[in-house]
Formats: sequence, structure tokens, C-alpha cells
Amino acid sequence: MRSIIPDYLTEALGDVESDISGELAGYIPELAAADPERLGAVFAMVDGAVYGAGDIDTEFTIQSISKPFTYALALSDRGFDPVLAKVGVEPSGEAFNQISLESDTGRPLNPMINAGAITVHSLAGSEQLNPTERVERVVQGLSAFAGRALTVDEAVCASELEHAHRNLAIAHMLRSHDILTEDPRVAVDGYIRQCAVLVTARDLAMMAATLANRGVNPRTGEQVVREPVVRQVLSVMATCGMYDAAGDWATQVGIPAKSGVAGGLIGALPGQIGIATFSPRLDPHGHSVRGVTLFERFSADMGLHVMEVPAAARAAVRSNHVVGKGPYAIRVFQLQGGIRFAGAERAVRETMDAAPAQARVALDLTMVSSIDDVSRRMLLEVVRRLTLDGHEVYLIDPDSIIPDPDPGDGGRVTVIGDLEEALSPGRTVT
Amino acid sequence: MRSIIPDYLTEALGDVESDISGELAGYIPELAAADPERLGAVFAMVDGAVYGAGDIDTEFTIQSISKPFTYALALSDRGFDPVLAKVGVEPSGEAFNQISLESDTGRPLNPMINAGAITVHSLAGSEQLNPTERVERVVQGLSAFAGRALTVDEAVCASELEHAHRNLAIAHMLRSHDILTEDPRVAVDGYIRQCAVLVTARDLAMMAATLANRGVNPRTGEQVVREPVVRQVLSVMATCGMYDAAGDWATQVGIPAKSGVAGGLIGALPGQIGIATFSPRLDPHGHSVRGVTLFERFSADMGLHVMEVPAAARAAVRSNHVVGKGPYAIRVFQLQGGIRFAGAERAVRETMDAAPAQARVALDLTMVSSIDDVSRRMLLEVVRRLTLDGHEVYLIDPDSIIPDPDPGDGGRVTVIGDLEEALSPGRTVT
Amino acid sequence: MRSIIPDYLTEALGDVESDISGELAGYIPELAAADPERLGAVFAMVDGAVYGAGDIDTEFTIQSISKPFTYALALSDRGFDPVLAKVGVEPSGEAFNQISLESDTGRPLNPMINAGAITVHSLAGSEQLNPTERVERVVQGLSAFAGRALTVDEAVCASELEHAHRNLAIAHMLRSHDILTEDPRVAVDGYIRQCAVLVTARDLAMMAATLANRGVNPRTGEQVVREPVVRQVLSVMATCGMYDAAGDWATQVGIPAKSGVAGGLIGALPGQIGIATFSPRLDPHGHSVRGVTLFERFSADMGLHVMEVPAAARAAVRSNHVVGKGPYAIRVFQLQGGIRFAGAERAVRETMDAAPAQARVALDLTMVSSIDDVSRRMLLEVVRRLTLDGHEVYLIDPDSIIPDPDPGDGGRVTVIGDLEEALSPGRTVT
Amino acid sequence: MRSIIPDYLTEALGDVESDISGELAGYIPELAAADPERLGAVFAMVDGAVYGAGDIDTEFTIQSISKPFTYALALSDRGFDPVLAKVGVEPSGEAFNQISLESDTGRPLNPMINAGAITVHSLAGSEQLNPTERVERVVQGLSAFAGRALTVDEAVCASELEHAHRNLAIAHMLRSHDILTEDPRVAVDGYIRQCAVLVTARDLAMMAATLANRGVNPRTGEQVVREPVVRQVLSVMATCGMYDAAGDWATQVGIPAKSGVAGGLIGALPGQIGIATFSPRLDPHGHSVRGVTLFERFSADMGLHVMEVPAAARAAVRSNHVVGKGPYAIRVFQLQGGIRFAGAERAVRETMDAAPAQARVALDLTMVSSIDDVSRRMLLEVVRRLTLDGHEVYLIDPDSIIPDPDPGDGGRVTVIGDLEEALSPGRTVT
Repeated sequence: MRSIIPDYLTEALGDVESDISGELAGYIPELAAADPERLGAVFAMVDGAVYGAGDIDTEFTIQSISKPFTYALALSDRGFDPVLAKVGVEPSGEAFNQISLESDTGRPLNPMINAGAITVHSLAGSEQLNPTERVERVVQGLSAFAGRALTVDEAVCASELEHAHRNLAIAHMLRSHDILTEDPRVAVDGYIRQCAVLVTARDLAMMAATLANRGVNPRTGEQVVREPVVRQVLSVMATCGMYDAAGDWATQVGIPAKSGVAGGLIGALPGQIGIATFSPRLDPHGHSVRGVTLFERFSADMGLHVMEVPAAARAAVRSNHVVGKGPYAIRVFQLQGGIRFAGAERAVRETMDAAPAQARVALDLTMVSSIDDVSRRMLLEVVRRLTLDGHEVYLIDPDSIIPDPDPGDGGRVTVIGDLEEALSPGRTVT
Repeated sequence: MRSIIPDYLTEALGDVESDISGELAGYIPELAAADPERLGAVFAMVDGAVYGAGDIDTEFTIQSISKPFTYALALSDRGFDPVLAKVGVEPSGEAFNQISLESDTGRPLNPMINAGAITVHSLAGSEQLNPTERVERVVQGLSAFAGRALTVDEAVCASELEHAHRNLAIAHMLRSHDILTEDPRVAVDGYIRQCAVLVTARDLAMMAATLANRGVNPRTGEQVVREPVVRQVLSVMATCGMYDAAGDWATQVGIPAKSGVAGGLIGALPGQIGIATFSPRLDPHGHSVRGVTLFERFSADMGLHVMEVPAAARAAVRSNHVVGKGPYAIRVFQLQGGIRFAGAERAVRETMDAAPAQARVALDLTMVSSIDDVSRRMLLEVVRRLTLDGHEVYLIDPDSIIPDPDPGDGGRVTVIGDLEEALSPGRTVT
Repeated sequence: MRSIIPDYLTEALGDVESDISGELAGYIPELAAADPERLGAVFAMVDGAVYGAGDIDTEFTIQSISKPFTYALALSDRGFDPVLAKVGVEPSGEAFNQISLESDTGRPLNPMINAGAITVHSLAGSEQLNPTERVERVVQGLSAFAGRALTVDEAVCASELEHAHRNLAIAHMLRSHDILTEDPRVAVDGYIRQCAVLVTARDLAMMAATLANRGVNPRTGEQVVREPVVRQVLSVMATCGMYDAAGDWATQVGIPAKSGVAGGLIGALPGQIGIATFSPRLDPHGHSVRGVTLFERFSADMGLHVMEVPAAARAAVRSNHVVGKGPYAIRVFQLQGGIRFAGAERAVRETMDAAPAQARVALDLTMVSSIDDVSRRMLLEVVRRLTLDGHEVYLIDPDSIIPDPDPGDGGRVTVIGDLEEALSPGRTVT
Repeated sequence: MRSIIPDYLTEALGDVESDISGELAGYIPELAAADPERLGAVFAMVDGAVYGAGDIDTEFTIQSISKPFTYALALSDRGFDPVLAKVGVEPSGEAFNQISLESDTGRPLNPMINAGAITVHSLAGSEQLNPTERVERVVQGLSAFAGRALTVDEAVCASELEHAHRNLAIAHMLRSHDILTEDPRVAVDGYIRQCAVLVTARDLAMMAATLANRGVNPRTGEQVVREPVVRQVLSVMATCGMYDAAGDWATQVGIPAKSGVAGGLIGALPGQIGIATFSPRLDPHGHSVRGVTLFERFSADMGLHVMEVPAAARAAVRSNHVVGKGPYAIRVFQLQGGIRFAGAERAVRETMDAAPAQARVALDLTMVSSIDDVSRRMLLEVVRRLTLDGHEVYLIDPDSIIPDPDPGDGGRVTVIGDLEEALSPGRTVT
């Protein structure tokens, strides 16, 4: 009976099935021989639920979709500075196969074009790895994103190696600028193996969901990369992922995305969902024709656009009332929903605007569904200031949404699970 | 006592004050004569609260910051298609004063470069307006965003007109491609008046907050433009607003933004906040030096980055339990927090996965802080399917977060304010 | 009976007549209404002889063919430095209507593209001229090249002014870089009048012949511009005259050339000939289709290519013999042909290699058909050195091809009309 | 005593000696270790005379100066069409190491940039040659131009191979477009050997003189390539040889030229001279600093500029008179100097304008120093027409400047060595 979303996906696929426009990638026989009618779509939720329709378990090569994930691995393995020194983050406004190096330094403009991706491949894993180990690191890393062990399509790999002149040209150019410091052929070989990793639409959706889930694979629970890396990768996907169609995509779809010439297309919406589609025919930009249509539909139907302003929320401060009387009276501020900076600001404002007349003040977090770091710090600062002003402060936090609260210099707070506890003796935490 | 945020802003200004790098815009005497030490920053919350520090009420000319707002007005006044036919949405990867027209059509690449902005100015208001009326429409529209009546700096305007050769060049080029269909000088005159509108940092923050608040000015409550327009404008700001520094900004700051040569800089984070800074010295990209530093800090300190994945939230389904016994038993699904697609999906999954054994089912929305359109429709579909499966369905919604619920063909739902009502006779809504 | 060349031209026109490919320039009605079948070709020799076939007296507007001539006028009126400071000499490799300014200075790349030509127009005549006088200077100057008073086609002029947005764009851009220092509209108006001057193919051939004839109109004998100006203009025509087809033209035709959108096409081969063709249909580069074919043929048939190496010439030293005996013996070096550096070098070598045994030496210039400046100086140096070595030197120069010879410090020479004079007492010139 | 030109060269070198600006090419140790003070200049006349001063016998690597000569070999070995199909002739307006391929076909813009030169190398010799044989063909061809057996600097060659990443990048890019059809590394290896050929300034001047002398080495007399090839090569040198300084060079020097990073610089003025200079410090364009200065001086001092209009020549028709009386009267047209199209036209005009009254007509070529093909044909046509008009025609041509004259259908001519012969019985040639 849980078929609302599968039904939706099936209907969406049905609507695009008749579109046979576009062309298969034809530069190697293996891609040219793909079944052009393949069609699949998968939603992977950040808690691990997966919905799919169509060809969601057919394997195909990951191709350029490997780029953001290998970028994540390089940032993770080497740190930001060494990677940024070699590869920029500016959109090129050009097609994927343009060389697009900075004219003075030879630094590739971004990691989504081939020049950037080949360089990024060379930065995956530790510096000590030999080329074979580095490819292993990449395949293992992509597997961690996907949550299963992925393998390389040796036939595609061999064929790509035979048609790698453009990538070899790029790599030699990078080598001439000392952006690459190894044999260009070795770097291209590794990059081609990376692109020949076999995935299914299901895998790709899970990989995207791992990005949407702050770097943690929703199924395996593995923290594949840290949050700052995820933020960097999603930002670069948003501005550079769709090459010269970046602006159209940003306005009409608004989901950080990446496509591959084998027909895959992924999108990751932070905190919500990873999406993948598979349909091999490509538009002139090199993106899956039906995939683009599906993403446009998903974005419109589901409100999945990073610039979608959420519907007017309830106030973060649900209520502001006094419980009890006389010296036992407590001013209670009941917060609710997901608290980010704007919500925390509101809480600060309401609690501090009119200095509470009561000696005792409680911040009730029972109905708070999430809270971010800055908001946690702001609420603790409120606690501290209230303490300094002579108040006795309680945090009603039955689920420890703020674990081990430390209001800092001069602040004191008593954590309780229920308001009732404040009306009777409770424990105190500094 | 509400000084946490003001204190923060004051500290932030203090930290950048010593940075006197950069140059005043010098192409007209009025800008070259600005006081380079001016420095201010304002936070405007989507509920109308405003925090500021420094020179927040000093007037200066809005310059290029008028571009996204006039783009919003044109989209609103003419509709999307006529505007998109004349001005693209692709980043140019070039400086603000590059002509950057599509080589075949002469269409400016995006509305943030001057060629696009001059064209957009010509599309503000209805087609019937004469040039004077069109400027009035623009000034009135900018005023609506700001929430107060803005005026034009006639001295700057006159001076800009004397130094308008580059813009006249652009306008004549646009005219030669029939992108502009009027006298180029008239279009440039109007555009220059638009850029010479006087604003304060406070105004700019409120204008940004209006974008962050789905087009509704938080103070006046006026719906200046509709939501799809806001989404389009924010998307274009995100990809094109910072010109050739777009990628650096997208990764390091991650707030859709726009700068002006008089020293203003704004950012709008959907659903949360409008930010403005003012400091006249500019970096080589034409952005306020201290403004950029302040935004980098705000983003880092406050978690204000569109790709910031919110901290792991509590489950959208807070609890799933049975109240009452025997035939009166009700299966209650208690939802919580802000419900968007991912949350609605979870709710659908839990309610429908295991078909409830109980004849009566209640969806408790009491603790839901917000819900978007797709989620509302998904929950109503759950209601419909439960009805079709023979259940009697209740919606516990004391604050009408889903007003007038209509589960559609075959569905029925009883809205109640409290679970108690379900245990006694209640009213029924189809 | 002098019909060899007219017959040739008639035959050549007949061969291209059936080619109706290409399109009329259509940006103004006057050009679009031209008779596409018009066809004419003219050869103007540097001594004033003119051969023509077809429509050689039909008037049409000169358009871009005015560019090299106005460049000549500006160089002549202002001097090289002020003109080179404003307009470069580098080929742009782009079409005629590209802006092509140097990115740092805004200086147009060369005087053959519109940006350069508008700037050059502004540099014609003295700085004191008002715009009307400047146009008069240009029309008068073009007339001097043509050898008859030319007039402006007012209808074309008016129509061009209505469609001048691209040129106005260029002029405003030039003004913004201070390359133009006057009202851009005034400069464009003047430039448009310059382009609307009416000419015939006969006029154009004579204008080209004036360039080929070192700046002297072969018919009127007027020195319109000086030789260094001619050299500069021909060099720039050779590299920039045919825009993005420059290389094809340089290899296949090899005649410095310039075309106009009204169908004119000129070529000037230094020292030999001015050629003009007229046929209004244009190829995608904007050049007359049949005109290009005719020039290719003329070049191939007539050996008119600047890189054509002349057939192996006779030795510059025709004979080296002794006349007379004993103390009256004279060593005679008989020179012949056109003497340029290579010929003079040969003469120097033969005269000085083996120091003549005879006390008397004669250089016989009777059969020399031309001599350039460096060669004249080299021969006089030979005279001087022979004198210093104790020889008595005679110059046999009946037609004063070296007038008033001055061999310089220590040199002496006796000019005689005939060797006989040396055998009898002659006059001596220091 | 023949020291006029050596003295001049010595003085010119002395004047530039103090200029130590510029930098040695530093991309390989061998070039970086060159003696920067080396300085030499050589003039090689088309008749084999050579003048030099300074370091004229020091060997250095030919580098890019090999490009025009290998282009000549490829055109010669394969024909024009196969070479033009692979490499264009348009100036790129870019530096030598830009890739500059046509965007659609991948065809290098011209043979003077590396992409073109690598492709040209692959087209030298017959298609059947293996890579080693092809390099041998190139070295042998360069040796034929120089007139002595040249060798390869193996140390430079090995070092260049280690630093060949940019050229390998270019070659792989060419391979990806099927412009190159062999292993890119093999093509680059061959090209590097070509560039590492050792030459002296004397060799280079002789190579240039071979171009100036219609493809015939002035010393060995070998016809290395045919005239159309020479014309093509000189044309391409004129427009593309000096890369992004092409326009400056064309106007200020006006000699088709080519430079190499080892410090060589050559120029060839058709029919006159080959020039070479050697000085290793390079300007930012990659041209020898002192070499450029020397060429500017040579051009100015010697009138060596292709657009230099020769000084006004004597009339091609020196005299037009009647010798003898009554039936024996002969109308004699005495021609003189170098006869090209313009001179022949004049001769045609004078001989045919006024139909000679005399039955006998003589064209006296005794004082003609040279005549080109078209002029020869025109004079013979005059002969034919005079014959048809009933005249008896004589050609006074003691040195057979028109060997075996054939006036064609209906024409008859009697060749005599002296006018006296016409006054007595002579031999007749049809």
C-alpha cells in the first residue's frame, strides 16, 4: 500500500518514454551499443528509504558522475588547500570537453570539466599511493558512497583507453603547467578506470543521498566524507555541474546535479533526497534527454529547488507563558520546529526583549525537531545572560537535543525532562 | 538586553575596520568623493526584526544591487517568457562590464551584467508605459521591496549620464540586435536613474529579506512579487550575481548575493534572513572589500550557506501509538517539525507501510511547525487511501496548518483540535 | 588594335558572369535594391593607362574601401605617431563588424575594422577642423586619389544613419576608452558620409593605382600622400584588408586589397597596377563573390602576387671591360636594369672585388632603367672609395638617373653623357 | 676593399650590442645555458654572395625556423591539396604556443604555430616513409636549403623530448580530430628532431636566400622546391611568421620572416636577399630582441620592404624610332629594364596604339634585364597580331632572353642579334 511515490515515478517515466530525441554517446563502441530505450528513476531518502521505477538495477558506467565524488575523496584525503591550489571552482560556461585552464597558471577552472577531473583523480588518496592503489582508493570510495562494492567495466575501460587522445592532450597540457606532476598517461589511465566504474540508478541515488545526508551513507551509516567537504562538493555541482547549461538548470531545476555520457544523471538536495535517473540518449550539452525532463518535473512537482522558500513557518517560539505563581512562578518559552539561525534569533529576541519579571525561566525544547550549531550556541548565550541577570534557568530537553549544555562563563542551567521537575527540586548543571 | 546579535555585528565590524585595501569607484566624481571609512551591516529577519551596527542609515546609491530587484519587477510585470526571450540566465564568467551577448542572437547572457540589466529595465512595467512612467514603476517597485519611498540622487544621475558611453555602447549593440526596440539613449537614461536610487544598508537588508520571505516585505506585509519570481531571482543571483567570482562565492559564502559599486552588498537566504553591508572600497571584481569579508564570516559563523545540510533532524514522525481500546482504539501518528517532501515521504511510509489494524486513524499535526505544498498533498493522499481501505481518518490540527483539507475522490477526513474530540462525537469534513 | 588587355578582361568577366551565388548586403534598403547582375573590372596602370570591361562607370557607394584611403589621409594629416597611438596594425582574425579592441587600452586592433575606421575618420584633417570640414577633407582626399570630384549619396547616407546602432555602439565604446574624444554620434555621422561617397569601378582602380604609384595619381600627377604613408597603408591592407579571409587571400591572390559591401573590390600592386572590380553579391566574409574570383584569376594569369619572385634577371653588371690603352685606358662597368639593393650589391662587389689596375674607372648607367635610394648611395660610396684609392672616376649618365651626384668626403666624380667624353677632356664634379 | 656591406653589418651589430634586454629561452637546460652575448648577421644574395659579421659560424638549433622550410617540403612532397586539407593559412593573432585549432574541424590555423608545424612534419616525405625515414627526409631537405649537410643536436633533442608535454598535448588533440593519424608521440619525436637541427647564421641566410631565389639554392644551384611552393611559403611567413606581432612586423619591417627560440631570425625578400641574425635573448613574443632591431634597421636602410614601391622607373619603352628608309624602313621599339606585367602592357600599348606605317617592325630586347612569363606571352601576342596585320616582325634578342619564341597561330617572327641583321637577310623562326 506504500505505492504513492512508486506510482508517481512510474507515471513520470511513462510520460517521458515516448521522447526518443537525442543521441547515444558514440565515441566508443561500447557506449554506442547501449540500449537507448533503457529508462529508470530512483529516489533515495536521507534515512535510507529507496523508491524506484523502471531500469533501476541495470548496470552502466558512471562516467562523469564520478567527478563530484572523486572531488569529495580528494578534498577528504588531501585537505582543501592542496586541492584548491590545483583546481579552481569557477564555472567555465563551456562544454565539458573544453580545456578551460586559467591562462596564467594552467589551473583547470573547476573539477567538473575533464581537465579538473583528471587533476582531481591524481589527488585522490594519500600522496604515497602508487597508481594502482590510487584507483583502488577511488573505486573503494565510490563504493562507500554507493554502499556496495562497485567494479570496473574492463571492456569500456579498454575501449576508452583507445580513444583517449583528447584526455591525453589535456593531461599533457596539465603536465606542462606542473598541475599534474606524474606521467600524463598514468593519470589518464586511472581517470578512465574511475569513469568505467559500473553503477545502477539505485547506486547513483544512494551516492547522491549520501551527499544529501551530510556525507553519511543512509544505509550503511558510514561517514564517507565530512560535512565541509559535502558543502564544497554540492556548491561546485550547483555552479559547474551542468557545464554550459548551468543557468537553465539552476533556475528551472535548482538541484545540485551531475550527468554522465552513459545516460546517468544525479541530483542531491541537502537534507532531503538523492535522485538518479538513467536514460542513454543525450542532448547537445551531453545530458540525458529524458533525465533532464524528469528532473524538471521532480523539481516542480516536489518543490525540490534549493531556492524554494519554505512555506511560512509557525513562529519558532510556540508560546511564552507563566506557570505557577508567586516565587514559584516560571516564565516558560516553548520553542518548536527546526531551529536554524533565524529561529534562534527569534527565540533570543522573545526571551530577552522584555526582561522576564520572574526569577525562574525555562526554555522548553520538547517540540524542537532539529537545531543547528549556531542556534545551540545562541540559546546557551541566552541562558548565560539570563543567569548573569539573576535568573535561574531551566532547559526542558527530554531527548537531549542539546547534550551537555555549557552556557559558558558565568552561566548556569538546570536540564530537566519535564516542566514538573522545575516545580520540584531538580539537578543543576553549570 | 537583546544585544546578542548587535554585539556580534559590532564585533564583526570592528574586526574588518582596519582593512583599508581596495579602491573607491572612480568613474564619476560623486562616487570618488565617498567617505571610504563608512562601514555598516544589517540583518533583517523574515519576520521583520532588524539588527544593525555602524553606518546603517547613511544613504548611498543602489547601483547594480538594483539589478535583481528590477529583474523581479520585469518578470512580474511581463511574465517569464517575454523576459527570458530577451535575457538569458547563464553565468558569463566575465566581469560586470563585459558585453557578453550570445553570439547568434545578441541576447545578453544574464540580467546581472549591464547588457542584461539595461534590457531588463526596458521590460519593467507594462509595455504601454512611457519612459518616465517606467522609471516611476521601477522606483516604486524598489520602494516596495524596501518598505519605504525611495528617491533618486539627481547629482549622481547627472554625472553618470555624462559618463555613460560604455552603457550607451551596450545599448546600441542591443538595439542593433533588436533586443532593445527603443532609443538606446532612453533606455540608458532610465537604467541610470534606476542605479541612482538612494538606499541605506537598512533598506537593502529589508529588500533582501523580502526576497528571503517569498516576496513579502516583512514589515509592510506587501506581496511585492510572487514566489516563482523570487525563486528565479535568487537562482540567478546565486549563479551570476558575483560575476567572475561566482564560484569562490558559491563555495565560501553560499548566499545568493549582489553588490554595487557604491559599496553596498546584499545577500538573501531563503526563509531566513536578508543581509546588507556597506563599505565603499572595492576589490578588483568590483565588490566591497570589507563587505565580502563580512559575508564570509556571517556564512561561517551562522551556518548561512544554501548547501549547509541541516543537522540531523528528529524523525518527522514523532510517535506512532494507539490510544483507547477495542472499537474506540485510534492509531495516532504524531508528526513534528517542518514538513517538506522528505518528511512527508516518511510520514507516508510509516502510516501506510504496515496497514493499521485499527479502524480509526489520526494524523496529529499539533507539533508540525511548517508544511509545504507537496507534503500537504501527500498527506491528503494518505487520508484518501486510508479511507478507501475502510478507515475513519482524523486530522488533529488545532491551528489549521492544513486549512480546508480535501483528500479528493473517495477520501474523507474529520478535522479536530484535540485527540479528545475523536474520543467523543466530532464534525466531519469531506 | 590595342585590345589585348580589354579582350582579356571581357573574357574574364564572361567566365564569372554565370556565378550568381552570394547575397546582396541587406541591412539598408538602398543596398538591398542594387542590381545584382552588375559586373565590371578595371586595370589602371601606374602611368595612367586604363583598361576596363563591363559596368565600369556605374556609381555605387565606396563603403569600406574608403578605409585604407582615409587611413592614408589621417597618417598624412596628423603624422604616424598620433594615429598609431589610437589604432593598431594587428590583424584581428575576425569579421569586419567585430569590435576587436585591445583589452587593456581599448585601442582598435587595426584601421580596417569598423572600430579602427571610425577612429581613423576622427583623425582625418587637422585637429582644428569642425566635423563638417572634416568630412569635406575626407571627400576631397578621396577625390584626389580618384582624380575627380566625388560626391556623397545622400539617400544611402540617411538610410545608414538610421541603421547605425552597431557603429554607434562601437563609437560609444571607443569614447569610453578616450580613443574617441568627441561626441560618438558626430564621429559616426562623419564616418557614414565617408562610406557613402559614390565611386565607379574606374574611380576605384585609379585610387588603387595612386597607391601603387607611390601616392601620385597617375592621371593628375598630384602627390596625394607621401611614400611612407603608402607603404604603411599597403602593409595594413595586406595583413588586415580581407578580415578573417586574410590568409587565403595572401596566399592565393597576394595583392593588398580591400572590399566594400556595395560590391566594390580593389587591389594595388606596388609599382605596377591598381585593379578594381564591381559585382554586388557578397560571400559570407562580406566580399564580392565574383570580385574574389576575378582577383584570383588576375593574380594567377598576370603574375601579380607580391611574393612572386621575378624571373631570374640578367646580372646588374652587364659588362666589365677596358676601353683604350696605356695611360688612357678606362675600366668600364656597364650596369643595367632596375637597380635595387641586390643589384647595387652586385655592382659594388664587381667594381671593388678586384681593385682595377687602371687609373681611370667609369660606371656606365646608360642602360639602367631605375635605381633606388640605397643603391644610389652605395654606388656613390664606390666612387668615393675608388677616389681614395687614387682612381679618377667617371659616371656615364646621359639621362641624369643620379642627379647631382655627391660621393661625399674625399670622393670625386666626373659625370659624362658618353664614354667618348672621357676619352677627351671632360668636366669634373666634386 | 669589398667591405662596404661588411662594414655596414659590423656597424649595425655594434649599435645593438649594448642591448641586453630580453631573456634566454629557459624551458630546457641546453637553451638556458646558451651564451647570451652571441651576435651575428648575414646577408646572402640570390647569386650566392654572402656577407657576414659577428658570430656567423656558431651552431645553434634551428627550432621554429624549420617550420617554413618543412612546410615547403610537405607542399612539395605531397602537393598543395593534402597539406591545405590538414593545415590552414590564417593568422591566429596568438602566441606561438597557443593551440589555435579551427573549432569545427580541429585543423590548425596555420603551419607556423606548433599545432600546424607538428602536422606539417607528419606530411613531409611520401606517405610510405616510416618515422625515421621521414626525419631523414626533413633533415636532408633542410640541408638542401642550406647547401650543406646539417646534423641533429642529440643533447637538445633528448632534453626537448623530456619537456615535450605541451607539444604532446597538441599532438593528442590533433590525433583526436584525426588531423594526425599516427601515434602522437611519434609525430612529436620527429618534430623535435626537426627543431634540433644545428645551423649557423650563415646556413640560415642561405636557406632564406633559397626562398628569395625561387627555390634554387644560390650556391649549389639545386632547385630545392618549385616556385609555387616558394610563393605559398613566403605568403604564409608574411602573414603568420611573427605570430601576434605580425602587423607591427609587416608595417615596420615588411620582410617575410621567421624566428626560433634559440635566437635565430630569418627574412627573405623575393628576388633580392636572404638575411639571418643570431642573438639568443628573446622578447615576450619569443623573437630575438637584437634580431628584431637589426631587421628594422636593415629594412629602413636598404629599402627592403615588400611594399616599398620602386622608385619611378624609366619607361619600359626606351625609344620608338624608324631606321632606314622606303621599303627598307624598320620601326624599332627599344624596350629596357625588368619587364613585368606593367612594362609589357606599356610595350603593347605603344606598339599597337598607332599601327606602325612601316611594313617591318622590330622589338629590340637588347636592354631588357629581365622578363616574366606573362610579359613574354604578351609580347609574342603583339608579334602575332602585327604579323596578322601584314607586318614582318623582328625580335632583336642577342642573349635569347625569350628563347625559342613562338607567337602562335598565324604569327611569325625573325630573331636577330643585332638590328644590322634586319637590314641584311636574316633567319626566320615561326
